[in-house]
Amino acid sequence: MNKPKIVVLRLGHRRERDKRISTHCGLVARALGADEIVYSGEEDAGLVERVNKVREKWGGKFKARYDPEWRRFLKTFNGFKVHLTFYGEEFATGVLKIKKEMKNGKNALIIVGAEKVPREVYELSDLNLSVGNQPHSEVAALALVLYELTNGAGLKKIFNAWKVRIVPSGRGKKVVERG
Amino acid sequence: MNKPKIVVLRLGHRRERDKRISTHCGLVARALGADEIVYSGEEDAGLVERVNKVREKWGGKFKARYDPEWRRFLKTFNGFKVHLTFYGEEFATGVLKIKKEMKNGKNALIIVGAEKVPREVYELSDLNLSVGNQPHSEVAALALVLYELTNGAGLKKIFNAWKVRIVPSGRGKKVVERG
Repeated sequence: MNKPKIVVLRLGHRRERDKRISTHCGLVARALGADEIVYSGEEDAGLVERVNKVREKWGGKFKARYDPEWRRFLKTFNGFKVHLTFYGEEFATGVLKIKKEMKNGKNALIIVGAEKVPREVYELSDLNLSVGNQPHSEVAALALVLYELTNGAGLKKIFNAWKVRIVPSGRGKKVVERG
Repeated sequence: MNKPKIVVLRLGHRRERDKRISTHCGLVARALGADEIVYSGEEDAGLVERVNKVREKWGGKFKARYDPEWRRFLKTFNGFKVHLTFYGEEFATGVLKIKKEMKNGKNALIIVGAEKVPREVYELSDLNLSVGNQPHSEVAALALVLYELTNGAGLKKIFNAWKVRIVPSGRGKKVVERG
């Protein structure tokens, strides 16, 4: 059995308004242990490139790509589909459900909306999960879900093929670079 | 002994560029259990108002305010000062240190930088903490620290004096409103 994959789907990206938030979603997905982010909404080659450049420099296999047809992608995704919404089911309970599915070998799709999420997304998802019931941030919600799904190990992941690497340090900056 | 407070200091806010990221920092601070956010950098009444309006609607005592003199604020803060930086000390170990200080009744200051953080901040902090050693997002870093410091309880916090509240739900949207 292959290790289940974690894929992030970012819906409804708006080139200007969501520039940094969508970039942060991609970087968080990579740094917290997801395998891929699929962007939908307005096409934005710069966004995809920005996130993939981080991989080139910092290593690993994480990929960002753009898919204009989010509906088809969502419907045909092979795995357990989780939509993050502050209307959803309680966090800890929901996380256990996802972990159970992943333990059974299922891939997980984490869906992150922008401003207004179509009703269909709620219906096409296997789980509507709330990361708290207060308004905050899709970047934070994504980070917390990935943190729990990887039991914190996402944060400690070793990325291969890096050109730059940070060595943890209480004082100052320790950076290692290589060809 | 009073319950130790958690205060967030957002450094170097830039009105245009950081508009949404700084807002997300404020909302995350509130939703994950901090008591206050202090913004520094470019003055931005709209930002402070946006975050405080969320309190008026969704309840609780969380406050956002602006302080142009971050250096003085940082130097005179009464408590344990933690600067989030991906150059810093390993996450789990660092979190234990903060918890220990808070257990002894100390307030915690969580410092979140923008683009370029002055060297002084590293030196004035009691702890430089890395939330992973990969580039990601100050919003995510803040969320993960607060999540750990409150043992996940921040997410479940009940806010008093709300006008709107969400009831967790697997399907659909359950919203309660009152005067």
